[in-house]
Amino acid sequence: MWLNRDIVSIGDLSVEEIMEVLDRANKMLPYASTGHPRKPLADKIVATLFYEPSTRTRLSFESAAMRLGARVLSLGSLEESSVAKGETLSDTIRIINSYSDAIVLRHPSEGAARLASEYADVPVINAGDGAGQHPTQTLLDMFTIWKELGQINGKSIGFVGDLKYGRTVHSLSKALSLFDVSLYFISPEELKIPKHIKRDIEKRIPVKETKNLDEIIESLDVLYVTRIQKERFPDIEEYKKVAGVYVIRPSLLSRGRKNLIVMHPLPRVDEIPAEIDNLPQAKYFKQASNGIPVRMAILDMILGSE
Amino acid sequence: MWLNRDIVSIGDLSVEEIMEVLDRANKMLPYASTGHPRKPLADKIVATLFYEPSTRTRLSFESAAMRLGARVLSLGSLEESSVAKGETLSDTIRIINSYSDAIVLRHPSEGAARLASEYADVPVINAGDGAGQHPTQTLLDMFTIWKELGQINGKSIGFVGDLKYGRTVHSLSKALSLFDVSLYFISPEELKIPKHIKRDIEKRIPVKETKNLDEIIESLDVLYVTRIQKERFPDIEEYKKVAGVYVIRPSLLSRGRKNLIVMHPLPRVDEIPAEIDNLPQAKYFKQASNGIPVRMAILDMILGSE
Amino acid sequence: MWLNRDIVSIGDLSVEEIMEVLDRANKMLPYASTGHPRKPLADKIVATLFYEPSTRTRLSFESAAMRLGARVLSLGSLEESSVAKGETLSDTIRIINSYSDAIVLRHPSEGAARLASEYADVPVINAGDGAGQHPTQTLLDMFTIWKELGQINGKSIGFVGDLKYGRTVHSLSKALSLFDVSLYFISPEELKIPKHIKRDIEKRIPVKETKNLDEIIESLDVLYVTRIQKERFPDIEEYKKVAGVYVIRPSLLSRGRKNLIVMHPLPRVDEIPAEIDNLPQAKYFKQASNGIPVRMAILDMILGSE
Repeated sequence: MWLNRDIVSIGDLSVEEIMEVLDRANKMLPYASTGHPRKPLADKIVATLFYEPSTRTRLSFESAAMRLGARVLSLGSLEESSVAKGETLSDTIRIINSYSDAIVLRHPSEGAARLASEYADVPVINAGDGAGQHPTQTLLDMFTIWKELGQINGKSIGFVGDLKYGRTVHSLSKALSLFDVSLYFISPEELKIPKHIKRDIEKRIPVKETKNLDEIIESLDVLYVTRIQKERFPDIEEYKKVAGVYVIRPSLLSRGRKNLIVMHPLPRVDEIPAEIDNLPQAKYFKQASNGIPVRMAILDMILGSE
Repeated sequence: MWLNRDIVSIGDLSVEEIMEVLDRANKMLPYASTGHPRKPLADKIVATLFYEPSTRTRLSFESAAMRLGARVLSLGSLEESSVAKGETLSDTIRIINSYSDAIVLRHPSEGAARLASEYADVPVINAGDGAGQHPTQTLLDMFTIWKELGQINGKSIGFVGDLKYGRTVHSLSKALSLFDVSLYFISPEELKIPKHIKRDIEKRIPVKETKNLDEIIESLDVLYVTRIQKERFPDIEEYKKVAGVYVIRPSLLSRGRKNLIVMHPLPRVDEIPAEIDNLPQAKYFKQASNGIPVRMAILDMILGSE
Repeated sequence: MWLNRDIVSIGDLSVEEIMEVLDRANKMLPYASTGHPRKPLADKIVATLFYEPSTRTRLSFESAAMRLGARVLSLGSLEESSVAKGETLSDTIRIINSYSDAIVLRHPSEGAARLASEYADVPVINAGDGAGQHPTQTLLDMFTIWKELGQINGKSIGFVGDLKYGRTVHSLSKALSLFDVSLYFISPEELKIPKHIKRDIEKRIPVKETKNLDEIIESLDVLYVTRIQKERFPDIEEYKKVAGVYVIRPSLLSRGRKNLIVMHPLPRVDEIPAEIDNLPQAKYFKQASNGIPVRMAILDMILGSE
């Protein structure tokens, strides 16, 4: 049962449920740029409650809600408001709860969405809680792989860049490990995937870890690139050396498989130069646009009348 | 006549008009969480013009407008915009006037809403002007008492906390004094209700002033709690001593009347601990949610076609 | 063909196209305060992407979109969001492109709108790019002259104030020079109209430059006033002297033609005192309100189904 369900962690969904979301997202795709003809959420209000700015995520949810006919209560940045008066998250949630039919929550603290879901009667969708979860990002990533490659099973997915701090990579790799895939983690020593995540994944599927993107490129169906942040390195020279190694070049991609796709959660900075944008492998803008049908699917499943 | 009427001060409404709003709010109640089936404001634009942040009030108005089918033009915080270029409130109002069908105004200066109402052709609703008025807050407080206790006449209402600076208490106690009620003002010496307000109220109804909540609790039907702000005290130790006395405990409430209700304009900090939240007396979240039907009633009365 | 057309610069429009917009705006006028009965953009999402605050412009576009039935994705101030992470404008545009059906862009850098239009599939409307263009402001200015005076041809228009830095004056005077008009530029020496703009205009129509508003007032059908900013003067005394000369007084206007109109892009500060507001010549608030029908016309022409 999806109606009124909280979407807090990708780990709460079974493989069957994930496939159900992807299938529904696929059905939403034709309406993602025109609006749903039936306006199934015409009487609903979706509140976007962002305790830290994330324009892309907020607008993607708001656009998805509007495409389904819903109205959007946008709380913008909350720093200046009640929060400053010391109100707890649970009090704020109990109030927004009576103003809306669903709450999309972004919060800097891990666990905030779970807490919120306990105080709200209306469903809560986690739009990122600190180092924690961002389940609709994971679902749109999976949708992109599934749509572009026809299926998830049997594919080889390589993650490159900062695998230590990236919430996106942690969630997606764990979710993918429920499928029959091979995962490759390509990163500098300083930014390796955390041991507990790797161990968890290795229980189910084969994993390969390496520093060398060049030697692995030919094995991949998906190259999932992430940004390496300057702030992770005490020494700027060290950063430059490391970051330079993982810049994606056309020459690298030309050695990849015929159907290789390049993904990135965006924003990207220098790790994918503009010269890649028009290559057939580049799917990161498509991936971002997939946020609309995937979020339409989720909103319709938890709020719709069907 | 309500059509196109400005809602600037609760003092502009007669007892009959207040009861008319409460009655209409009661009729709106079934639609407060589902939306009005007729969408009476489908062709209207409601502008929320907030010169200081107040998330709860802004969202409550926006949700109420949406539940009636209206569209919302949200001006967010205005500090960075035209205001910074030195534009007067009257100029801003004359422009927003041509963009919308009603203006909900929050402003730090007392009298701002009255001024705005003189420059706008469309109705202006005061959503709080400094130490001045916030009439829809007063109306939702009265609606809560009326709904929870069946009537306002004959009831004993006690205000506790900061009665000196609280706009909420001043407006509500004056409005209640039009009814046949008894009022109790419970506060530390430093935060007593202003003399001119007390005198005004005493012309019509009995008032009792005390520092001692314990001795008065048994006489109350409504305990209206407000926050005591640190900033009011030069000495932090003095603040702690005073604030501690007015924290609402279950043991206090257990000595109250059977149908006693506890209200608070929110946000609350320590004056009502979480242990109170699930007691039957706790009505402050209900009170906040009553902002929706009350504001729906007001918007429909001044903008609707009926 | 208007469908899906970018509106980047007034210079992209021919005289015939300008007149087509004004004519369509005139047809929109009856719906500017009631909403269009057909809701021609009911399935559209208009995104307002403002990289610098401009409340009036943003709200005017949002109100116009709503009056046509569109939904509005409001990005508010973008400074705190992805921009801070170093994302390029082109990347942001490619993403917003998939969330909306049209992008209204305000940006501090000249040329930003043109760049955006190259990356977006959906139409881009320039809502001001630094010292560059703000075509809908020019169109609403022309609409005001046309509506108030019956026609543009044959009229004498005087610009007064800061003619050096004002984007509004540069665009409007160039657009007007396509018509059979006389232009007067009235300013202090320090704030004269730039030579290249004057030369460009003089190729087509007569221009007169002067410091003396008094001697020119009797020749004008339109007096277009702009703000003189303190910051333009190294010496505050110099500023006061200059600014004082160009304050519009009733005595000045009484010497003008019978149908003289006074316009101003707003916000105004001291250059038009409040005593002018109720004179029949004062059209600056009417001018601001004309932003609605003009922007409705543009939005309907580029997004509508007709």
